[in-house]
Amino acid sequence: MKNIKLTIEYDGSNYAGWQRQNNHLTIQECIENSIEKIVKEKVSITGSSRTDAGVHAKGMVANFKTDSSVPPERFREAINTKLPDDIAIIKSEEVPLDFHARYSSKGKTYCYTIINRYEKVAIFRNYSCHVRDKLNFSDMEEACKDFIGKHDFKAFKTSGSSVKTSIRTISDLHLEKDGEIIKLYITADGFLYNMVRIIAGTLIEVGLGKIKKEDIKSIINLGKREDAGFCAPSTGLVLEKVYY
Amino acid sequence: MKNIKLTIEYDGSNYAGWQRQNNHLTIQECIENSIEKIVKEKVSITGSSRTDAGVHAKGMVANFKTDSSVPPERFREAINTKLPDDIAIIKSEEVPLDFHARYSSKGKTYCYTIINRYEKVAIFRNYSCHVRDKLNFSDMEEACKDFIGKHDFKAFKTSGSSVKTSIRTISDLHLEKDGEIIKLYITADGFLYNMVRIIAGTLIEVGLGKIKKEDIKSIINLGKREDAGFCAPSTGLVLEKVYY
Repeated sequence: MKNIKLTIEYDGSNYAGWQRQNNHLTIQECIENSIEKIVKEKVSITGSSRTDAGVHAKGMVANFKTDSSVPPERFREAINTKLPDDIAIIKSEEVPLDFHARYSSKGKTYCYTIINRYEKVAIFRNYSCHVRDKLNFSDMEEACKDFIGKHDFKAFKTSGSSVKTSIRTISDLHLEKDGEIIKLYITADGFLYNMVRIIAGTLIEVGLGKIKKEDIKSIINLGKREDAGFCAPSTGLVLEKVYY
Repeated sequence: MKNIKLTIEYDGSNYAGWQRQNNHLTIQECIENSIEKIVKEKVSITGSSRTDAGVHAKGMVANFKTDSSVPPERFREAINTKLPDDIAIIKSEEVPLDFHARYSSKGKTYCYTIINRYEKVAIFRNYSCHVRDKLNFSDMEEACKDFIGKHDFKAFKTSGSSVKTSIRTISDLHLEKDGEIIKLYITADGFLYNMVRIIAGTLIEVGLGKIKKEDIKSIINLGKREDAGFCAPSTGLVLEKVYY
């Protein structure tokens, strides 16, 4: 038996997210079906993250076990020929049998893209969040600093998600601006449910003057979801990289 | 009667191009239908360019004449509420009655985007042309220089298009590289049918070593379509700006 690690890019626009569901098409199902056509056996793949509907990935990682004699590096092209245009296997490789895409992960980087202009957005609308009112970029940049470090981020998760602890360590959070486009890059050892989107929404509200940049520390410390900003739309989010 | 100038952004992925057709949905038809819902009269809009299926625009210009009392600058928001998500009116303004989006145009800038990497592309696939083999960027940059100036570009048009002359002046043609993404910017007083896509295809073939960068001058001078490169796919093309 071999354990195969896949690195995957996808455009999440037309999917109900990563994880297999009964009545909706998901990315996991598409990839499993494609692999099954090659190995002629039932396959179950494990993803590093369960991205929501509309979220994209440049570097999603997943793994599956197989007795197939297909050389590990050949899976890339073989699966790609079975997949639709909006899912791409970037790399396939053999890894030790105990490698688990989710549990072995040491951290992840996400990117969140904002288009800040008054006018309606047509191009890239599926890869961004549109904010019409002018954002104060330097306030947003300053607010980033207070997120960095080891904190209890329970104010930045959608309630109902059951995790043992909401303590996470953000090792990097910074913004890049190119004209009307603002990109937020965030790296942490793990993320709570909707954490990146709520941090993005909070930073947008700082940029709009609805949340004061000085208040980020106390919002984190008080740990109340209602003090943080809105959950920014899934379209702006891309899973960039998973670390092992 | 007023003459209204519109500046338009659109994602051409789901349209059979700009110009109205009988059996296919076009951008012109969508915008005309939206305006007619507002002004309650038959409207015909004139576009600066007839972009092909799959081609996008950030700064398409069009004009239409109307007796409506709607203030010119209000047309933007009014039309946007009637349009689908992938078409956006960026600006609406009154212009002199003799303004004609096509005939009054003094020039245009297009951008052509190439993603140069071995791996399959999922994200941005509708906004780019994917080239798997490694492109020689400096050869492509050098080849750009010989296109600039006033030349007969008959080698760079799709045959069958009837125009009085194929002499055009390219005032700028340059490339920008950011990792795996190469953007080609081209500005001219006018473009022949498929001219940007054939120049993009020719530059790609220079980058692949299939056409020598030293041969661009003679390809232009000989004027034979078969000497130039392939017509690169429409997905990579964006009409950036029209000058008046």
